[in-house]
Amino acid sequence: MSANAQKLQKTYQSLCDYVQQTAMLSGVEELLQWDECTKMPPAAGPYRAEQVALVAGILHKRHTDSRLGEWLAELEDSPLAADPHSEFGTNIRLLARDYEKKTKLPQKLVEELSRTSVLAQQTWAEARKNDDFASFAPLLEKTFELKRQEAAALGFNATPYDPLLDDYEPGESTANVASVLGALREEIVPLVQEIIGSNHQPDRSVLEQDYEITQQEKLGRHVAEQIGYDFNAGRLDTTVHPFCCTPGAGDVRICTRYSIDNFENALFSTIHEVGHALYEQGLVREQHGLPTGTSVSLGIHESQSRMWENQVAFSRGFWKHFFPVTQEHFPTVLKNSSPEAFYAALNCVRPSLIRVDADEVTYNLHIFIRFEIEQALLEERLSIADLPEAWNAKYQEYLGLTPPSNAEGVMQDVHWGAGLVGYFPTYALGNLYAAQFYAKAEQDLGDLQAAFAEGEFGGLLGWLREHIHQPGQRYSPAELVERVTGEPLSHEPLLSQLRSKYGELYRL
Amino acid sequence: MSANAQKLQKTYQSLCDYVQQTAMLSGVEELLQWDECTKMPPAAGPYRAEQVALVAGILHKRHTDSRLGEWLAELEDSPLAADPHSEFGTNIRLLARDYEKKTKLPQKLVEELSRTSVLAQQTWAEARKNDDFASFAPLLEKTFELKRQEAAALGFNATPYDPLLDDYEPGESTANVASVLGALREEIVPLVQEIIGSNHQPDRSVLEQDYEITQQEKLGRHVAEQIGYDFNAGRLDTTVHPFCCTPGAGDVRICTRYSIDNFENALFSTIHEVGHALYEQGLVREQHGLPTGTSVSLGIHESQSRMWENQVAFSRGFWKHFFPVTQEHFPTVLKNSSPEAFYAALNCVRPSLIRVDADEVTYNLHIFIRFEIEQALLEERLSIADLPEAWNAKYQEYLGLTPPSNAEGVMQDVHWGAGLVGYFPTYALGNLYAAQFYAKAEQDLGDLQAAFAEGEFGGLLGWLREHIHQPGQRYSPAELVERVTGEPLSHEPLLSQLRSKYGELYRL
Repeated sequence: MSANAQKLQKTYQSLCDYVQQTAMLSGVEELLQWDECTKMPPAAGPYRAEQVALVAGILHKRHTDSRLGEWLAELEDSPLAADPHSEFGTNIRLLARDYEKKTKLPQKLVEELSRTSVLAQQTWAEARKNDDFASFAPLLEKTFELKRQEAAALGFNATPYDPLLDDYEPGESTANVASVLGALREEIVPLVQEIIGSNHQPDRSVLEQDYEITQQEKLGRHVAEQIGYDFNAGRLDTTVHPFCCTPGAGDVRICTRYSIDNFENALFSTIHEVGHALYEQGLVREQHGLPTGTSVSLGIHESQSRMWENQVAFSRGFWKHFFPVTQEHFPTVLKNSSPEAFYAALNCVRPSLIRVDADEVTYNLHIFIRFEIEQALLEERLSIADLPEAWNAKYQEYLGLTPPSNAEGVMQDVHWGAGLVGYFPTYALGNLYAAQFYAKAEQDLGDLQAAFAEGEFGGLLGWLREHIHQPGQRYSPAELVERVTGEPLSHEPLLSQLRSKYGELYRL
Repeated sequence: MSANAQKLQKTYQSLCDYVQQTAMLSGVEELLQWDECTKMPPAAGPYRAEQVALVAGILHKRHTDSRLGEWLAELEDSPLAADPHSEFGTNIRLLARDYEKKTKLPQKLVEELSRTSVLAQQTWAEARKNDDFASFAPLLEKTFELKRQEAAALGFNATPYDPLLDDYEPGESTANVASVLGALREEIVPLVQEIIGSNHQPDRSVLEQDYEITQQEKLGRHVAEQIGYDFNAGRLDTTVHPFCCTPGAGDVRICTRYSIDNFENALFSTIHEVGHALYEQGLVREQHGLPTGTSVSLGIHESQSRMWENQVAFSRGFWKHFFPVTQEHFPTVLKNSSPEAFYAALNCVRPSLIRVDADEVTYNLHIFIRFEIEQALLEERLSIADLPEAWNAKYQEYLGLTPPSNAEGVMQDVHWGAGLVGYFPTYALGNLYAAQFYAKAEQDLGDLQAAFAEGEFGGLLGWLREHIHQPGQRYSPAELVERVTGEPLSHEPLLSQLRSKYGELYRL
């Protein structure tokens, strides 16, 4: 090896060591938050907030450390980075991209965004409780103004929404997302009307009973394990809002919640989080913390949770296999039910006002509304003052419902208050990716429903490991979709799956 | 305020902010360790070790940061530090002391100690399993050599043991500890012989039964709460080796272990850790992380765990109150027992080979042996080669027993392998302090046994809060003892309590 090649190797190693150490501290931050949501005693709250802020500060310093810039400057145009999808090339390219984005933001703006987000979230919680949009409006106004400044600092051509979307879905453009989601919307809105107009409505009554919580928990663990979650490298706890987190390599934890009169919420939340966890558990361990050992994007992450939730767990094959064990857990409640009846009951489609309670068909409608509105707000085509009215009009247009209050309308989600603008479309993108990947997996693997009916989930997991998990960030979301499925992102696979499934269930 | 006074105030504030931030990170380290011992999935082990090492490295850098030295140099001889026991004076004096000690040690020695300790602990675990002292000996030799270098770097007059002891029991001298422990030994050795020679031996059979673990856990929680542990600012979990830790202000956690055939081990471990936790929960919250909000020493800490364990929970009054509820938890096992019989059974004295299993009388003998031997090793009056023989001879002399193997003899404790030399005497000091404080508390508060019999523990806790917990590190261990009890440290209170209690139980 030449002296120069050796020097480059050494620089690359310094870069990776530093980044992997930073990831170790990010893991510490995740543990602090996991503990806060699951185990921390109540009196510890205020001190914990300071601890988290301290670690976040250390992390921010590390993310923008000038040594990173020096190492990357040396490596970016070097032979090591020549192949952009190789291990070296991927890590250099994406670390340079992150560093550039992070250092483009003025320190003052970062602090102002962080301060405003803390304040806006507190105000939002109070305002939602009191259905008082007016008290939340000034901070929402300020948030969107700061996000415009952020977009300006990052730079953009078409719309300030582009650089914000890019934070969550790297390389994706607003125009492309708008086109794909628009095409889906055109089809889903009438499909929902067909479904709710059908004379054949499934009987949900089996779900409207009490399901004992300790049994729910046992079943959830059993299902998680059966579909491939590794409890040796994870754990399942109870919390208020379900989530998945990664305190370190070999440590991917999930949290869910239980309610005696909502069987499906706990189980499908658990499976959703297992989907996220399987992605994290499938990343290459030695690359932990480097782009090659990191998930691609929020949308691709959501595709994993959504696929295990929707394509797998809401499917007929899944319940052929799991209904008997579910019946064993709830012998009285499920005495007179059957796999087919339970499957039909779980797959009721009902337009509703609250996103997080939505079924897999109407869910996307909630996202279209937010995506359209947040673009208009950011581009100043809509004012904060007119926001509630615009929100309600869209709910009427897409779902045929008008929120009785802003608490159940425009104030239902924490996202905007938390400064997350450009985040919502990743939920719908997750659904689209999931359907497209699943269709391809079925092409490759044969009848997946038959496999699920036999309790076989390893085939699908192995396929996801190989095609989605192991490459890490080697490809952008769009590249990955095209590489894996041979097609660019499209609304067709999702639409076709929904049409076929609900056409049959509702006899359309 | 003069310009200079303002400047000093500002420097003091910078110092405190920095030190309290460092304490926040120490809390993070404690959480990482708590999680490792209680919740962490098995596969996370290797990565967690790296995370802990990273945080430890950040902490070490902060502890020896030159800014600390500059701030302290400005403050040490200033009017702010004039009263050594004031809030300002205490913090400046003790932070300066810590900084001086930490910066006296060459970086190379610190690293060598740390490396050797990791290696020696691993080797020790293996060597103990195989009863193979020879394989452990070289690392033990090296450890003592490094501890001699550490003592030399710190400086000493009488013996290299002094600066090491000072790490755990600040301001205490080897000569004074040797004199007090020696006086105790002179009396305890024959007392134990009297006890085991007595014709009246308590009946232990009630304890030699199975106690259902879920009931043990319920009872442990009940007792912890009754004696004052605040579950709102703490929690109780299960682990392998019981411990107490403080991940932050308002967050003092305890861990214990359960075994179906060892009722007393779980309960008294829980109470022991509650004693530690009550101390931590009693420190002044606003001063968290500063000397004024920190425990005095290991010995004083141990005095709190020991007092709640020995003077309180092993007492007759305690069981008058708690026997009925214990009987409710174990109705079958305790059907034919009584408060008095249970109290007697719990207080059996039996010389044994293993320190951690020892009763409150013989426990001190185990400490005398270690204290005498580690001095001799450090001062090179005893060689590592001759260590097992010396150990066994002392066990024969003080306890009348000879270990059948080195695994049950000189290799039973991890301490020396972990580089903890000068640590053992703090266990016996804890017993001495506990007895001396308890005698004084009883003088101040009246008949404590009568209070315990009524389920009243708040009087004693309030007394400890005021006299021991709230002053933080304002006084050295020796100063605190003298200040609180009006007498210097003495073996008399412990001896007199043991004589009176066991004289009656064993009809001596």
